[in-house]
Amino acid sequence: MACDKDCGKKCVGCLFDYETPVMLVISSKRVGAVFRLIQMLIIAYVIVYECWIQQNYQETDSVVSSVSTKVKGTAVTNTSVLGVHVWDVAEYIIPPQGENSFFVLTNMIVTPAQMQSRCPEVPGPTTVCLSDSDCRSGYSNVRGSGVQTGLCVNYSASVKTCEVLSWCPLENDTEIPEPALLEAAEDFTVLIKNSIHYPKFKFRKQNILPHINSTYLKNCTFNRKTDPECPIFRMGDMLEEAGEDFRNMAVKGGAMGILLDWTCDLDMKEQLCVPKYTFSRLDNKNSESDAAHGYNFRYAKYFKNSENTETRTLVKAYGIRFDVIVFGKAGKFSTVQAIIHIGATLSFLSLVNAVCDWFVLNFMEKKNYYKKHKFIHLDKMEDTDALVTMIFLKQAFRLHNIICSFTANFAEVLMLMLLLRCF
Amino acid sequence: MACDKDCGKKCVGCLFDYETPVMLVISSKRVGAVFRLIQMLIIAYVIVYECWIQQNYQETDSVVSSVSTKVKGTAVTNTSVLGVHVWDVAEYIIPPQGENSFFVLTNMIVTPAQMQSRCPEVPGPTTVCLSDSDCRSGYSNVRGSGVQTGLCVNYSASVKTCEVLSWCPLENDTEIPEPALLEAAEDFTVLIKNSIHYPKFKFRKQNILPHINSTYLKNCTFNRKTDPECPIFRMGDMLEEAGEDFRNMAVKGGAMGILLDWTCDLDMKEQLCVPKYTFSRLDNKNSESDAAHGYNFRYAKYFKNSENTETRTLVKAYGIRFDVIVFGKAGKFSTVQAIIHIGATLSFLSLVNAVCDWFVLNFMEKKNYYKKHKFIHLDKMEDTDALVTMIFLKQAFRLHNIICSFTANFAEVLMLMLLLRCF
Amino acid sequence: MACDKDCGKKCVGCLFDYETPVMLVISSKRVGAVFRLIQMLIIAYVIVYECWIQQNYQETDSVVSSVSTKVKGTAVTNTSVLGVHVWDVAEYIIPPQGENSFFVLTNMIVTPAQMQSRCPEVPGPTTVCLSDSDCRSGYSNVRGSGVQTGLCVNYSASVKTCEVLSWCPLENDTEIPEPALLEAAEDFTVLIKNSIHYPKFKFRKQNILPHINSTYLKNCTFNRKTDPECPIFRMGDMLEEAGEDFRNMAVKGGAMGILLDWTCDLDMKEQLCVPKYTFSRLDNKNSESDAAHGYNFRYAKYFKNSENTETRTLVKAYGIRFDVIVFGKAGKFSTVQAIIHIGATLSFLSLVNAVCDWFVLNFMEKKNYYKKHKFIHLDKMEDTDALVTMIFLKQAFRLHNIICSFTANFAEVLMLMLLLRCF
Repeated sequence: MACDKDCGKKCVGCLFDYETPVMLVISSKRVGAVFRLIQMLIIAYVIVYECWIQQNYQETDSVVSSVSTKVKGTAVTNTSVLGVHVWDVAEYIIPPQGENSFFVLTNMIVTPAQMQSRCPEVPGPTTVCLSDSDCRSGYSNVRGSGVQTGLCVNYSASVKTCEVLSWCPLENDTEIPEPALLEAAEDFTVLIKNSIHYPKFKFRKQNILPHINSTYLKNCTFNRKTDPECPIFRMGDMLEEAGEDFRNMAVKGGAMGILLDWTCDLDMKEQLCVPKYTFSRLDNKNSESDAAHGYNFRYAKYFKNSENTETRTLVKAYGIRFDVIVFGKAGKFSTVQAIIHIGATLSFLSLVNAVCDWFVLNFMEKKNYYKKHKFIHLDKMEDTDALVTMIFLKQAFRLHNIICSFTANFAEVLMLMLLLRCF
Repeated sequence: MACDKDCGKKCVGCLFDYETPVMLVISSKRVGAVFRLIQMLIIAYVIVYECWIQQNYQETDSVVSSVSTKVKGTAVTNTSVLGVHVWDVAEYIIPPQGENSFFVLTNMIVTPAQMQSRCPEVPGPTTVCLSDSDCRSGYSNVRGSGVQTGLCVNYSASVKTCEVLSWCPLENDTEIPEPALLEAAEDFTVLIKNSIHYPKFKFRKQNILPHINSTYLKNCTFNRKTDPECPIFRMGDMLEEAGEDFRNMAVKGGAMGILLDWTCDLDMKEQLCVPKYTFSRLDNKNSESDAAHGYNFRYAKYFKNSENTETRTLVKAYGIRFDVIVFGKAGKFSTVQAIIHIGATLSFLSLVNAVCDWFVLNFMEKKNYYKKHKFIHLDKMEDTDALVTMIFLKQAFRLHNIICSFTANFAEVLMLMLLLRCF
Repeated sequence: MACDKDCGKKCVGCLFDYETPVMLVISSKRVGAVFRLIQMLIIAYVIVYECWIQQNYQETDSVVSSVSTKVKGTAVTNTSVLGVHVWDVAEYIIPPQGENSFFVLTNMIVTPAQMQSRCPEVPGPTTVCLSDSDCRSGYSNVRGSGVQTGLCVNYSASVKTCEVLSWCPLENDTEIPEPALLEAAEDFTVLIKNSIHYPKFKFRKQNILPHINSTYLKNCTFNRKTDPECPIFRMGDMLEEAGEDFRNMAVKGGAMGILLDWTCDLDMKEQLCVPKYTFSRLDNKNSESDAAHGYNFRYAKYFKNSENTETRTLVKAYGIRFDVIVFGKAGKFSTVQAIIHIGATLSFLSLVNAVCDWFVLNFMEKKNYYKKHKFIHLDKMEDTDALVTMIFLKQAFRLHNIICSFTANFAEVLMLMLLLRCF
């Protein structure tokens, strides 16, 4: 092929050559049935799974969300330490900001009037001592309550422990009040305000639906049957739905998830896009190791007494942490997505032929007859060149020849371009 | 095919048989044009959409980020309750930690000197009473302020309400100060420090760019035109960009998002990877139901008076919560990704033939002439076996035969392996 | 093709026509070797990369996690402002809730006994004044400490600054204590409780493994070699693993990440699904601009003195913020996923033919001989119709003809359906 003058003409000619494979038509009911059956299965799969269930023809976007919460309710406790005390939101919600994660105090150990001073450690395997030599001045045990002074003093009539410099008197948390002091928290309610945004689709909505008026909102409580759209949730109801017992969980605390699922098909009506609420316990209640139970932390309120000395009330707070978890994925029809996914699936159809060929040429009675017609054998004429690579390279650099053959097939051009890019 | 002795030889032989489909070349300008056009479209799509816009040849990674914020500014208020009072950062930022979400106090209702005692409820539909019989001792309404004592007492000269045990005097939040008390917060600034990390590419950067020195940082304020790289933002400017009015929003509060977009093409120069700042309101301001307006919460400061009784100052805080939301995706050229995506797209090219064949064989004038040459019909010779399945199974278990045919085609081996794995 | 009566019959007939391409078999060792080599490479890639490394045959799910933390340890400081003071968890952990992000106080500047009053500004470029005319009454500099009264007063014997209304005396944070006051925080420990959930697989686990008993938990400390399963971490050890020096970082603070990687192959035994702990610094320590160093914020404790005036202790807190970041992806074998991924990869195999054809028809010695057998050229008989489009459209709307040809090939039906859906 001398590609000097007539190359251009030739290339233009082959540009409009359409190549289509020559096909052997086998009119066999058995093969035909297998072939059509597999085709049908693949098409059914595309329609049912890809289009209907997975909705792969849709473009998707993840939810952007803003949550604020507001708890309501009061409870009264009567303890020897605090006397009769009414607890309101500003006191039992920690931190008070009403973010998507809030903690409701349900039980506590209060140690009032602590002051920086010296006192004997709470007895324990590493704190009990017999004489001063058992204690080390300046030593601070990580699991202890303060810095040892080096003295061994009476904790009670029978037990001596190392003296520590700390906020004294020390807290004694060996006994947790049972039932929980703020068991009444079962009746507290929380209003959840949630605005969501699907940026790709410029879609905004909030969980307080447009038809909910403020009168309804002042009186309703969420109930899956009667009030499924009310965004006010009773603590006890949430735990019940999650299969937990409030009175039990209130003693040692725990973590709960309030899940809002905003999965929406935006090809449908906007009104159908509403959040689905579910509740589940987040921490592991059936923990084998008892050290991992519940949820608690310590915080303190600081005061100054009349001598201007700092005192504090230490609270070991047990309670339930609620995490409002908003998730969801919205989908909307997208031409590009549809073409990509359908194309990917259609390429499966080409595999059908491979399967049928295998069947026809190996398991049919007339396989040899079919083979004879399907395959055209050229005589074996082994290439005799000594240096295959040499020739390959020589040929490869006949550039105008290559360019000529390139124009005849764009796909090849593309592939070479990509190979060049890679290396 | 007796595969006893010469099977091995045969297999080795067919291993080196290369099969290529016999093609019918149709030199028709019309068909050729359609064929090349569709090919061109697909290749253009690959280059423009997949490579240029979506950059599918890149490997991607999601951003890992750490944010800290620091607000600056002071404001003075003059109210009957507090007198002249200067507010600084430690007082109006709640919580004070400077995390990625911070709340700026802009308005408030302060109820000082609350103490645990008894007082009449704030009048309302469920709290007004005529006699003691309307009140229930020990009853705590979820939407009320405390625990009822069972008495009905004078709230004012004309109204009687149930007496409650609570922090008294009760807060009266019916009137919100307008204009907002800390309207001056419009001039406050916030410094945002953000370090990001793309772990897959071991790429680290922070929003305070290397060429920003501390002198500039002490004096600059973000301005999209003049100072687009200054990480210090004026509250009023942020709300203005988001299309909100600060003075309006300050009264009842709201939630704002400060979005940092770190989307980067790491095939480009590192200097081009800078954050893009945008601001948008997160909560829904056009809420139809008035109960869902704004953003507020209650917190209290606890004191002890000279008689060692606990008193508190309750604050109903209205303000703006700013959420710093960092997102982004970095891409870098990856050989594996490139091959996968290009391969997937090229498999579309095989669909072109299907379309052209359909066109040629159904809509061309010479379709019958083409058909005659494209299809080689074998005589219909129906298979006469009685039990197709029986034979299929019998054949299928002639294992050495199968193995022999397997070696001839690796693809089949793979497919069977996978089918075995599935079931 | 008159499709009036015998169309149905014809369609049913062609339904069972199986078409398979006629192949040209070239028995050349060279071509065969290239062909099989490329096939092998693709299959090796599928097995090694897709199946073994990427495990693309698996369905995946992202982790849902709940974290709580508890810090232990005490430290003593001796400063002129506070005297000897013991710090415990309730004091140095801010906020105290034990969420997934907690701050450990390591250094501080304490300004006690602040009160709302007037005092001279801290000297600086914008605050130094010579006379009252340099100060503006009511002006509040964003970077200043309060609202100017308009007077210019003595800050020290030599310097005069504008007087401000603020919490006085003002904080002077020019000198940071070095070494850090709570350097002993190096020995503090943190217990991390983490429950995870893979919803799709209904798989729950926690980082406190079932075989860990409470006795072990009371005494252990995480050590990658000796105690890799102990969920109690010493602060100093974490920073050391991250390549940081605790004593250095304690002075100005910083942000650390505690990463729990729950990546699990759920096809394996459940016991193998354990978290991998890693630690890394989140903020940028090698910041070129000195303004961006460390991590600090201001908070205050409020008191009332004997005259019922509010006073406060302002603390500028430097410290380390630890973020517990839980991530992970679980995979489990899924038939649908396996078929999709294998199918996608097998469609590559069809590209092998394109490559080999290119090689055979352009670089082989006998290329012309092969070409002669591979391509069957039809005589060029150009279509003479004037209006190609007209005819195309006319033909396209011969609907019963189309439907007839449709039934013969389901793939075409699907493609049309999709095209109709798109437009």
